[in-house]
Parts: sequence; structure tokens; C-alpha cells
Amino acid sequence: MQPSQVHKVCLPPPTTTVQKLRRRLSEIFFPDDPLHGFKNQTWFRKLVLGLQFLFPVVKWGPNYSLKLLKSDIVSGLTIASLAIPQGISYAKLANLPPIIGLYSSFVPALIYSVLGSSRHLAVGPVSIASLVMGTMLSDVVSYTDQPVLYLKLALTATFFAGLFQASLGFLRLGFIIDFLSKATLVGFMAGAAVIVSLQQLKGLLGIVHFTTKMQLIPVLSSVYHHKHEWSWQTIAMGLSFLVFLLTTRQISIRKPKLFWISAAAPLASVVLSTVLVLCLKSKLPDIKTIGHLPKGLNPPSSNMLYFHGTHLALAIKTGIITGILSLTEGIAVGRTFASLNNYQVDGNKEMMAIGLMNMAGSCSSCYVTTGSFSRSAVNYNAGAQTVVSNIIMASAVLITLLFLMPLFYYTPNLILAAIIITAVIGLIDYQAAYKLWKVDKLDFLACLCSFLGVLFISVPIGLAIAVGVSVFKILLHVTRPNTGILGNIPGTQIYRNVSRYREAVRVPNFLIVGVEAPFYFANSTYLQERILRWIREEEEWLASNKRSSIKCVILDMTSVTAIDTSGLDTISEIRKVLERRSLKLVLANPVASVMEKLHQSNILESFGLEGVYLTVGEAVDDISSSWKAQP
Amino acid sequence: MQPSQVHKVCLPPPTTTVQKLRRRLSEIFFPDDPLHGFKNQTWFRKLVLGLQFLFPVVKWGPNYSLKLLKSDIVSGLTIASLAIPQGISYAKLANLPPIIGLYSSFVPALIYSVLGSSRHLAVGPVSIASLVMGTMLSDVVSYTDQPVLYLKLALTATFFAGLFQASLGFLRLGFIIDFLSKATLVGFMAGAAVIVSLQQLKGLLGIVHFTTKMQLIPVLSSVYHHKHEWSWQTIAMGLSFLVFLLTTRQISIRKPKLFWISAAAPLASVVLSTVLVLCLKSKLPDIKTIGHLPKGLNPPSSNMLYFHGTHLALAIKTGIITGILSLTEGIAVGRTFASLNNYQVDGNKEMMAIGLMNMAGSCSSCYVTTGSFSRSAVNYNAGAQTVVSNIIMASAVLITLLFLMPLFYYTPNLILAAIIITAVIGLIDYQAAYKLWKVDKLDFLACLCSFLGVLFISVPIGLAIAVGVSVFKILLHVTRPNTGILGNIPGTQIYRNVSRYREAVRVPNFLIVGVEAPFYFANSTYLQERILRWIREEEEWLASNKRSSIKCVILDMTSVTAIDTSGLDTISEIRKVLERRSLKLVLANPVASVMEKLHQSNILESFGLEGVYLTVGEAVDDISSSWKAQP
Repeated sequence: MQPSQVHKVCLPPPTTTVQKLRRRLSEIFFPDDPLHGFKNQTWFRKLVLGLQFLFPVVKWGPNYSLKLLKSDIVSGLTIASLAIPQGISYAKLANLPPIIGLYSSFVPALIYSVLGSSRHLAVGPVSIASLVMGTMLSDVVSYTDQPVLYLKLALTATFFAGLFQASLGFLRLGFIIDFLSKATLVGFMAGAAVIVSLQQLKGLLGIVHFTTKMQLIPVLSSVYHHKHEWSWQTIAMGLSFLVFLLTTRQISIRKPKLFWISAAAPLASVVLSTVLVLCLKSKLPDIKTIGHLPKGLNPPSSNMLYFHGTHLALAIKTGIITGILSLTEGIAVGRTFASLNNYQVDGNKEMMAIGLMNMAGSCSSCYVTTGSFSRSAVNYNAGAQTVVSNIIMASAVLITLLFLMPLFYYTPNLILAAIIITAVIGLIDYQAAYKLWKVDKLDFLACLCSFLGVLFISVPIGLAIAVGVSVFKILLHVTRPNTGILGNIPGTQIYRNVSRYREAVRVPNFLIVGVEAPFYFANSTYLQERILRWIREEEEWLASNKRSSIKCVILDMTSVTAIDTSGLDTISEIRKVLERRSLKLVLANPVASVMEKLHQSNILESFGLEGVYLTVGEAVDDISSSWKAQP
Repeated sequence: MQPSQVHKVCLPPPTTTVQKLRRRLSEIFFPDDPLHGFKNQTWFRKLVLGLQFLFPVVKWGPNYSLKLLKSDIVSGLTIASLAIPQGISYAKLANLPPIIGLYSSFVPALIYSVLGSSRHLAVGPVSIASLVMGTMLSDVVSYTDQPVLYLKLALTATFFAGLFQASLGFLRLGFIIDFLSKATLVGFMAGAAVIVSLQQLKGLLGIVHFTTKMQLIPVLSSVYHHKHEWSWQTIAMGLSFLVFLLTTRQISIRKPKLFWISAAAPLASVVLSTVLVLCLKSKLPDIKTIGHLPKGLNPPSSNMLYFHGTHLALAIKTGIITGILSLTEGIAVGRTFASLNNYQVDGNKEMMAIGLMNMAGSCSSCYVTTGSFSRSAVNYNAGAQTVVSNIIMASAVLITLLFLMPLFYYTPNLILAAIIITAVIGLIDYQAAYKLWKVDKLDFLACLCSFLGVLFISVPIGLAIAVGVSVFKILLHVTRPNTGILGNIPGTQIYRNVSRYREAVRVPNFLIVGVEAPFYFANSTYLQERILRWIREEEEWLASNKRSSIKCVILDMTSVTAIDTSGLDTISEIRKVLERRSLKLVLANPVASVMEKLHQSNILESFGLEGVYLTVGEAVDDISSSWKAQP
């Protein structure tokens, strides 16, 4: 092997602290460079682009056609037939009057259609946020004893949810929702779905005195201890409708073209059950019905917002947690359908749209809303082309609110329970959990923790545990990184891990150690011990096999993506330890930021010019040839 | 450039989940392979090694000589002359009776000399742990109103500190103390030193009614509002001795050979001030003295431990925080002097030794002890060779306890304040803080946060903030990793960042993106956006410069040290997006764990055999030659 040319490892171009800070901040807050479309444009074009940025309706509005409208009307009516029964059901899940669920399918949908950038999002109340709001508020305030205070707190929480969402978007802190990893969400949603389904036994069994707690054990014991309240009429009717709804769901899953069967089933069930109860009301005295619902549009509710007093902290906390959960669902749904249709959804802009929609909602008797996964899927399958489908849905809800409310008088509660169970059962994604187990055991652990935490402790603590496990996983990877011995792949300048590549051979007199993590305070002691152990083990092996001993240790720094002051001390310390043993230490390919810090801390000088090489190969060639020159 | 041979990227050797877990756990808990000395040894040798492992005294004992003893006597007496006044002073810092400080310099030192593996550690009470214990306990229990309960809690906290330390060592969780990074500690110690020094104004100014709070503002206001209690006699005498002690400290810093000047100064000051007060007691009525101290050895105190009742949680919390802080100091001191003398200190073993010493201490009237930095430095400079110097020091303390206690009757409190100030002033390491600022701004921020947190909020919260900032720094690096475009260094197979290496040239039709971080849930959205932005910017540039467009994107995965399920989805998503734009995506050099997960999640199959290359160079050569073959 003839010694090849040696390339100098250079420092990154000099930058001032301000420049560095600016670059860093722009990477943190503007990684997508949102203003790139504005560059080199006339001021008029900039104005148009600005309007389009703020109100996406300006962008697609001018090109809107009759053909698009036709698709949107079909899909809008389809999601309305889902949104009306689901709205009433989810409001019950949040322990709110059913009418609030309908209000929440009206105003927010209109606002989103002006501000939102997803074309397929179907806006309205969703199960997870309803569940979490219901749990957190009724832990403190009873919705039966203090219904007005409860409603006030729900609206206030909605306001803070919106404020929090809009602020995240405005401050471009959208990446915070990334900390709810998919693994965490799979476990969380499954746990919530189990709890919600069990809670619905109240409606399905006709129990009157049911626990308001949300943990598995109190719910099950409540079901068992109120056996005498079970109503067989309710159970028979409830189970029939549940089986019907689950069957239509299965049909639509098997044949996606028949999506309309499961989309129409809830409304059909509501109509059918209402008619049944109406006709047989004398024979079915046990079956509880929704009762009177007021007619009319959303009443203004800004006077209900609650900005002082003992429960303010509860409202803010509930707002933040429901806000972050509904944001996660809304953004994920938006991104999913955007990716299927090859358009982009700007996360931060979308957060502002959802946040403003909730803030406006809280002033018009709506509780937390977002893009629902199930309804958006139906919307997409029904051929929605733009957010106009949301306007159509809102119009259908408007007609219901104005004229059809008395029809719900005899709608039995059991049908709402059956609708909720059918909706949330889809949240239990055991296939995803199995895939997590197969691919990444630690991700599965995060998933399991959030599942069990929600089931046995509480929703916020379950979430906190799951986020904790996810963060712990990152820290564990940093605390105990991979290290390995590299060997040369014969005939090349490539060096790879010898335990993985059998063809890689160790180079005599050299020990090449690869480190696969940043050098941080959290791992500096470990890395020092581990590197010295590699050297000790190699020396013992060489001695026992009577080979010539190591003369030079090369640290391959390619994957050391960052270093802090503790890491710098460690490198300096390793160098000193090796020097005492007359071993040379050189570094190969430190990345820009590492090189810069080595330079700033004067450690580079102690290595000298020959201590840092561009590649492992050049280091080996150059040092071997220097040994040959001075034998 | 002729196309070179293409090497296959292989999967790591197949391992079962159990094997993987075992390897992972052994890396987490036994990175130093503590039993490697035991391999291939006779059973007798194993027994001897085991005894040496448990009781390091067995290892050095047989070789102990008269010459070593001589050095140890000199150094032992030197540290005793420091330990006696410091012991009394630090006990006062912890709001404990002064005699507890002397007890704590006796039993723990003897136990450490049997179990400890550092040869230079001088064991006894230390300022930081004393301060923290004093603050945390007196926040809840008054040491003047309930001295017995206070003492019980202090001993109980010591027991739990020891239990916690020993458990960390036994469970091999020693890496937990690494999370107190050097940056955090620099700030924390400086903050604590400032607070402690200001607290000593009580003794130096002769104030009687002083705040028990530890924040900057209450302490300063207490000094100001009790101006009428200031005693000019105390101030004059206190300042003189303080100047004397600081001067001797400066001399020893300038000329390390004169270490004995600063080592002898505290005892000399105590003697001198006691004699002064004794002679002039009629003329100095304002000067407060220590008063009566009981003679005799450590009384047993296991009956004082407090395992139930309202304050148990406080004792446990105080124990854990003082335990972790004293452990950090002890381990750091041990490692520093071990490294200077080229021997190894096993962190986990050392934790067990310090833990057992504190548990035994709590049963013999001692409070938290560890290796003191200042006394260990004196011990080292005075020529200590083994832990026998601790035995000599303990003997000197023993003689003091048995015979010399009445001599302290007239020792003025002000001299203790002066000794404490002189000791803690060395903890303010402004040079280290300046270096942090110069090298790593975020480390400096962690340092500043812990400094200000301790100064203005409280010790535990200050520490928590600093650890939070350090962890945040790791997460930030993961959340917003570096990415960059790589180019070829002409005449080689080396590809490096084009913004750093001017000689690196982009390869036409290729876009090579290097990612410098693991692909995690926390950055998967960012990385997807960022990679697509690199592609968009490159395409715009190529189009505006009328160059031929990109046909293939290569992701250099060398520094992607891990991947989770969200990351896998992102890679799959990027591939789909690029496929729709007729761009090819290939991966270069995925590390073992990433390759394995790509395989398990079936993403590798979607890439096909030609989608993964061993190096960027081989990818470029192979793909270009395939284009030439099929134009």
C-alpha cells in the first residue's frame, strides 16, 4: 500500500457568537424556511403570498369550480351524518350537555375552513380530548352537582387549549408535540379506548349510579357492584346496535369502497333506535333517553370564561393537556392526508389555525375540537377536495340545530354508548404494538408504560410516564453509546467494525476505536473507562498470542456529533493516560463543531498538527510510513 | 475514476433478544468488566482477589513498610490540624453541635481506611453537604427550638445518604452522578460558596438574631436589619484572622511547596484566638465562644434514627440530595488523585465504601462525610502514601476528643466563620466558568442557571434546574441535529461537508446529505422537512444555473447512531416522496443497529439490494456506472 496524500483537517469557517446563535435559532424555529417563497418577488406578489399564507382560502378560492363543489357536497353530507351522532356522544364523554357537541361541530368547522391548510381535515369534537377533559375536570368538580361551574371550566379549558395551541404555532415551538412519539401514542390511545369502552357500560347496561373515576379498577368494581341496576331491556337493545355498528365497521375495513356503510350506520342507528323507543315507550320504561335539547344556534359564551378563583389552575392544566393531545391528533391527521395527496401541511401554521378555532369556539359554547381521524378518513374516502366539505357539514349541523332538535328527545343513551365504543375501538392498534415489539423493544416499553399508566393511574400521569420513558431512551443511548474496534477492508481505505464485517482485518500496531455518540458529561466517564478497556483487552490478547503490541490508538470521531467541556476533559485525560504508557493517540475525522471546540479549549495544540487526520486510512498510512522512516 | 468493487453492507451477526438484552445490561452495569482479573485463575487466587476486591487493605497491607508509615504520619497529622477546626466549623454550618463535627472525623475515617480504594482521600465532613443538610432540615425544623429532633433528622438523613450511596454502588448505578456535569457543579459550588460566606457574616459581625433562610435576599436583609447587633470587637478580630487565613491560602497557592502554611493556619488561628479571648475575656465581653463541649468518644446513636412519623420524607429527601452531592465530591476527588498517580479508582466500589462509612457513621453520632477536596489536596501535598494517613488523622481526633475538649471553651465563633469562608472561597472557580463561556455557551448557561438557582431560589431547586438544562442540551442536540451536503475531495473516495471543506466538490446528478444524529421521534419531523428542504434548495439552484438536475439522493448514515420506529417511518416516507418525484434514494453505511432495524421493519426490502452501500464513494461509483450502462 503506498502512502497516499495526507489531507489537512480544517476548522469550520470562523463565525462570531452572534452568527452562530442566529444560525442555531433559525434551525430551531425556522427549519422549513417558511419565507423562501417570498424571496426575489415584487411587493404585490409578496402581499398576495402573505394573504395566501395567512388565509389559505385565498389560495384555492379563485380556482374553485362546480366540479369540486359537487365532491365537497357529497363528502360534507357524509361527514355530517357522522358528526351529529358523534358530537352528541363525545359531549357526553366529556360530561357536557349533548347540545355542546353539536355547537362544537358548527363554529370551529367554519373558522377552520378559512384558516386551515389541510384539505381533508374534518373538524369537530374527538374522543381522546373529550375523555381527558371529562376525567380531569370531574376529578375536582362534580358535573351533576355543579353543572354551571363544570361548563364554565370546560369552556375556560377550551380557551386555554386554543391559546396554548396558537402560541405554540406562533412561537414556532411546534416541535414540542414531537415528544409524544408514535410509540407513546399507540399505548396511550389503546389505554384510553379501553377505559372509554368500559365507561360506556354505564349506558349499555343502564346503570344509574356509576363511578366518575377513570381507572380500570373503580370502573370494573362499579359495574359489578351496581348489578341490581342492570336493565335487561337496555342491554338487549344496546348489544344489538353495537353488533350492527361493529359489523358495518368491519365491512368498511374489508372493502374501503363501502366506506359509506360505516359512515351512514351511526345516523341510521340513531334514527332506528329513536323510532323504536318512540313506538314502544310504554313497553320499554327502563331505557333512558336524551330528553329535551334546546333549539337554536350557538349562544355566545365569552361571559362564561373563568379567569380567576380556585379552579383556574385546573382549567389551565386541563387546557394544556387537552390542547396538546388534540393538536397531536389534528397535525398527524393533516400530515397523513397531505402526504397521500402530495401536498404540504405547515405544522406551525396549522397549530395557529386549530388554536384560533378553539379560542373562537370557547366564546361560542364549543369545547375542544380538532381534526378527527375517523371522520377525516371518511371525508377523504367520500372524495372531499377542499375544506368546503367542512362548510357543508357545518350547514347540515346548522339545520339540525335550528329545526331537528326535538327529534332527539326519544334517542336512547345506549345508542350513544354504542357509537362511542365503535369509534374508540379503532384506536386499539395491536398491529402497531406488535410491530413496535418486533422492531424496537424500548419503544414497546414506552408504549406499554403509557397503556398501563392510563389504565391504572390516570391520563396525565400515564402520558408523563410515557414521555419520561421516551426521553430516558434518548439519554440511555447517550449514556451508554456503542463503541467498537475497526479494521481495514482489504484493498480499500475503508475501516469498519470488525465484529460486524468478517472481512475487516485489524492493522498491526494500531488500535482503531470507533465511538458512536456525542462526548457528553453523561457518558464521559463511561467512554474513558470503555476506551481504556478496549486497549487493555487488546494488549492482553496480543501478549497472550505473542504479537507485537499496540503503538498507536486512533479514535474514529466521525460519529461523535458533538462534544461538551466534560468530553473535552475526557479526551485530554485519555491522551495523558496513553502518553504515560508511551502510546500515541490520534483523532480521525472530527466533525466541524467538535474540531472547533477542540481548538477553543487548546486541546488541539496538545495533539499537534499530526494528531488529527481526515480519515482513519490516512492516519494509518501516514503514521506507518513515519515509523518506517525512523525505525 | 474507474468503478471500484462494491462491498456488501452486512447485517450484524444474528443475536436473540436475550443475548441482546444481556449485552446491553452488561454495558449499562458492568462497562468496566470488574471481574476480568478473576478469569482463568485458581480458586485460591480467586479468593485472594475477592478479598482484595472487598477490602483493599488486604492488597496494600502486606507491602506496607516503615518508610510509607513515616510519610503517612506526617500527612495524617497535617490533615488532622485542618480536620479539627474544619470539623467544628462545618458542623456549625449544618446547624449541628460542634462536637458532631469531630465525631464525624473519627469513625468514618477508620471505616474508609479498610474499605476505600483511594490512597489520598481525606475523609470527614465537607462544606457543601453540611450546607445543604443545614438548609434543607432547618427549612422545616428549627434547630434552636427542637435540637433533639433536628439531630435525629440529621442522623437519619445521614443513614439514608449512606444507604442511597451504597445502593448506587451495589446496583452499579454509579453513572447517575455523571448527570451532575462539571458545568453544573462549577455553578452550584460557586453559588453555595457565596451563600455560605454571607451566612458567616453572622459570626463575623457577631449578630445574634440571624435568618435561617439560605437565599441571597433574606441573608443580606438580615445582615442589614440587625445592624444594631453588630459587635465592633468581633468584627475587628474576625477580619484580622480572615485576612491572615486568606493570606496564608494565597501563599500556598502561589508556592505549592509551602502547602503547610495554609494547612497549619486554621489550627494556629484557633489556638491564637482562644488564648487571646482567654487573656482578654474581661475586655472582650461581646465575643461569643463555643462554650462547653463534652469529652469522650462517639456515643452510639442507632437509637436516634427516625424511621416513622411526619418528617421521614424530609430526612429521606435530605439524605438523597446530600448523599448524591457528597458522592460526587468524593468520587471526583478520588479520581483526580488516582489519575495523578496512575492508579484506578472503581467508582461503584468507592460508592459502596462511602455509603457503608455513612451508614456506620449514622449509628455513631456522625453526620454526612465524604472525601474533602481541600484536605485531600493537603494530604497529597504532605506526601500521603496510603489510607493510613486517615488512621493517623483519626487517632489525632481521638486524642482531641478524649483530652483536649475543654481547651475549646474559649474558642470564639468568629474564628469558625473565618475558617469556613477561607475554605469555601476556593469553591468559586471563575476561571472554569470563563473557560465554559469560551468553549461551550450552553454549558455556561447550565453553570449560570445552577449558580443563580442556588443563590435566589434554593439548593435543591438550583440543582434541579441545572440538571434540567444539561438534559435539555442533550435533547436539543437530538431535536435539531446538524445536516449538511457532502462533496467529493478530488482524487479520493472521501466525501466531506462542502461548507467546511472548500476543496470538496459536489458530484453532478447526486445530492449527498449527511445527518449527524440518531433518527428519533424527537427529530423525525425536523429531519424529514430539512432533508426535503436541502433537495428543494439544490434543485432551485441547479435550475437557476441551468445545470442538469438531481437524479439520486444519498443519505450518509455513518453518524446516525440509532433509529427508532418514528425514524424508520420517516425514512420510508422520504423514500416515497422522492419516488413520486422520480428521484432515487440510497443509504450509505448504516451502522449495525440501524441496519438491523431497517431489516426487521421490512424497509430494507423496499430499498432493494442496491439501495444500501458501504460508503458514499461506492454508491456514487456504482450508480453512475449503472447510468452509463443504460443511458
